[in-house]
Amino acid sequence: MIGIFDSGIGGLTVVKAITERIPGYDIIYFGDTARTPYGNKSPETVIEYAVQDTTFLLNNGAKIIVMACNTASSVAFDIIEKRFDAPVFEVITPAAELALESSRKMAIGVIGTRATVKSGIYEKKIKALNPGARIYSVACPLLVPLVEEGWIDRPETAMIVKKYLHPLKVRQIDTLILGCTHYPLLKHVIQRKIGKRINIIDSSTGVAGKVEKFLKERPDIDSLLSKNGKTRIFVSDVTDQFAKTARVTLKQNVLLEHVKI
Amino acid sequence: MIGIFDSGIGGLTVVKAITERIPGYDIIYFGDTARTPYGNKSPETVIEYAVQDTTFLLNNGAKIIVMACNTASSVAFDIIEKRFDAPVFEVITPAAELALESSRKMAIGVIGTRATVKSGIYEKKIKALNPGARIYSVACPLLVPLVEEGWIDRPETAMIVKKYLHPLKVRQIDTLILGCTHYPLLKHVIQRKIGKRINIIDSSTGVAGKVEKFLKERPDIDSLLSKNGKTRIFVSDVTDQFAKTARVTLKQNVLLEHVKI
Repeated sequence: MIGIFDSGIGGLTVVKAITERIPGYDIIYFGDTARTPYGNKSPETVIEYAVQDTTFLLNNGAKIIVMACNTASSVAFDIIEKRFDAPVFEVITPAAELALESSRKMAIGVIGTRATVKSGIYEKKIKALNPGARIYSVACPLLVPLVEEGWIDRPETAMIVKKYLHPLKVRQIDTLILGCTHYPLLKHVIQRKIGKRINIIDSSTGVAGKVEKFLKERPDIDSLLSKNGKTRIFVSDVTDQFAKTARVTLKQNVLLEHVKI
Repeated sequence: MIGIFDSGIGGLTVVKAITERIPGYDIIYFGDTARTPYGNKSPETVIEYAVQDTTFLLNNGAKIIVMACNTASSVAFDIIEKRFDAPVFEVITPAAELALESSRKMAIGVIGTRATVKSGIYEKKIKALNPGARIYSVACPLLVPLVEEGWIDRPETAMIVKKYLHPLKVRQIDTLILGCTHYPLLKHVIQRKIGKRINIIDSSTGVAGKVEKFLKERPDIDSLLSKNGKTRIFVSDVTDQFAKTARVTLKQNVLLEHVKI
């Protein structure tokens, strides 16, 4: 199976992107809802959680790992990749590449959690590909709780988005990376506030292309993956609100299976 | 020592209330910042965490336990009290009593996390004391992240507070319980939006009086408590933001000691 994990429910945007891009593959998802969110916690703590999440997925049949969480991708990818034998994918590099393809002025904005922005990972990745690019990052810690509360089309959310995006507007970026799996649910609000000419890059879609390309190049690994079109969603805590957010994200009814890790 | 725990940093409002009410007692505090917040998680998960938090405090010298967290008090108090020998205090009952003393119309509002409100604990406690009282509860899940971000005096916060309080305003309450240790930091905003004639009951202050009374009645237990005026603050995760919130709450510099539980 393709194993995908996230700090909570938001990573289901990556499940959606992968099942749309390469339908038929069986997916096992783990959302760490008992300890969500990761984005305001320290790198050490996020690394510890990411190791546990990965171990759970591998122990339950995953043959490749997708870190759907930007925060975990930012601070834990190198360690996860070294520590485990399975191929590991993160959401940062594909988003950085898509942003560079899209940007004409090479002026790119990034919004993410406090931990993601503090890690400076998007700057590093983008500068490694194009040292001349200018990158402006803003931490938007309140957007995750707003999405999790379902406050998508509320005026308060629009005000908060506007306030967060202000420093990027004055920098005249032409491309904006949504560096958190929760943010695609706010894309229409973000587009309205940043301006309709700005290209918005969704970090959940880039990684799906990477996985597709990898599986084409590596039939040996592709053959390890079962293809019955089944998705199982495990979470470390179940509440009505988590179930509701999952339903909104995947646009279908979902069964959340509770597991302790 | 007096052991106090909370889901995170907010419970330091209880530390402050206790050190002001009965100065000199040594305090050991545990804030579960690696898994914060508790308020949007299930009762089962919060109970598990509360048992671990209590065990940590007792293993490190606490002789009495104060559950500074409204969410934990709501869903885990009965289990904690049964499971451990030490005296255990929660923040709900004292706040309910203060509210009944303060209310003339016996129309009381309660704001809290989703888990606290869903538990119905304030209704139960208040109705047990006065079956004629009317209680109206509203879950305000965004207030904890707003406080943790330090968005205290922002217009967005005032708008969100106003929206949450609207159903209580139309009920013509005369008393409002702040059923979450984070909310006292927003008290001035809440007072402005709910109206200056409404009595606001802070759940962190009531419990301090309970502890004082108990220790006067039980010199055998009081004698077990060391009194060097020292407070040690342990947290399961350390970040700059947690340290900043702790400083704002206690209005002094604090050392956060990292511990894994």
